[in-house]
Amino acid sequence: VQEQTIAVVGGTGQQGSGLAQRLARAGAPVTIGSREPGRAGAAIEAWPAQAGTIRAASYREAIASANVVILAVPFNTLSDLLSQYRDTFVSGALVVDVTVPLIFSGGTVRLAEVPEGSAAEHVKARLPDHVRTAATFKTVPARLLNDTALPLDCDELVCGDSAEARERAMALVRMVEGLRPIDAGPLSRAGAIEHLTLLAVGLNRLHKIHDARFRVVGL
Amino acid sequence: VQEQTIAVVGGTGQQGSGLAQRLARAGAPVTIGSREPGRAGAAIEAWPAQAGTIRAASYREAIASANVVILAVPFNTLSDLLSQYRDTFVSGALVVDVTVPLIFSGGTVRLAEVPEGSAAEHVKARLPDHVRTAATFKTVPARLLNDTALPLDCDELVCGDSAEARERAMALVRMVEGLRPIDAGPLSRAGAIEHLTLLAVGLNRLHKIHDARFRVVGL
Repeated sequence: VQEQTIAVVGGTGQQGSGLAQRLARAGAPVTIGSREPGRAGAAIEAWPAQAGTIRAASYREAIASANVVILAVPFNTLSDLLSQYRDTFVSGALVVDVTVPLIFSGGTVRLAEVPEGSAAEHVKARLPDHVRTAATFKTVPARLLNDTALPLDCDELVCGDSAEARERAMALVRMVEGLRPIDAGPLSRAGAIEHLTLLAVGLNRLHKIHDARFRVVGL
Repeated sequence: VQEQTIAVVGGTGQQGSGLAQRLARAGAPVTIGSREPGRAGAAIEAWPAQAGTIRAASYREAIASANVVILAVPFNTLSDLLSQYRDTFVSGALVVDVTVPLIFSGGTVRLAEVPEGSAAEHVKARLPDHVRTAATFKTVPARLLNDTALPLDCDELVCGDSAEARERAMALVRMVEGLRPIDAGPLSRAGAIEHLTLLAVGLNRLHKIHDARFRVVGL
């Protein structure tokens, strides 16, 4: 039986580090992919111990060794990253896009126009055919994720390029305590999910809070 | 003291009829604006009695007599309607857009591209300066609204072109039992709220349910 190995690329930001720790808590071996693995390794030392191991590696090593790759880098760095590491992904890997193309300017926040329709479709267009793409962890607030003592207590919408991608992504969400995965259908739903993040960020700013998030009622 | 008079334009569809009945239940006098007031009047006869009165009138009469006008017609009829009745709105009226430009085709559902950015901004662009525009009641499912025996039990996002518009729209939402209004900020947030409706409709179709809706956690 081959164990699931999870790479969190960009695993030292709030979102990546929160996800890595909360997935490791469920017992998964997690590799943080970093531009500076030495510095990432030092950061990991300061994190509380989890049931699963967390180690740091280069982007290349992390991607090459994982059957689940979570992309937790800023949206505007995805294109360069994926053109550089496109051939590094393992055949059959699940690539999970968690990015949202938010633009903060003029005291407000909006979504960038993405020609592919959404960040997730932007990612899918830059990946080889032998991987699967899903989008999730887009709306759970990064700051809350990273404060690993706090309960999450919300739903997380999942969409993907195939039933298999959605099922695997939902299993990943289920590993994180306090999150309920909700199947939202095809990858083309990612744009609507990214708008949900925009709403949450707008609510945070307007109401001076940090953890606006959502539950689906009726499911 | 002048009483609040509410017009529901297009009040015989599921959304309009549900809103009219649930607002009348709170004691408000409601006028259903209809192309065929005679037929609308006959329909109202069959509705259960409510604390507030519900009567039918023409579009013109309903709009001219109301300080709150809820637009519950299909999105693609708004432009004609507003060009015809633009001068009928009372000065200081609150116009509440509840429409979502959904397109059902090829077995799926998406949002129409609206040049103004959202249905609510499309409405605002067609109204005189002496009225206020808000958007809400966009995500609570029409079918659930109209089954007036069922509890709603969800949150309803509100945005508007001014603090006054948002406050008045939130007060309107609060009149409907089981709905909690959430201030989502400026009218430019309407696009994100309309994407939330798209998500709900997509969830309904995928999960074969009729009443997917949302709660905001953390507020």
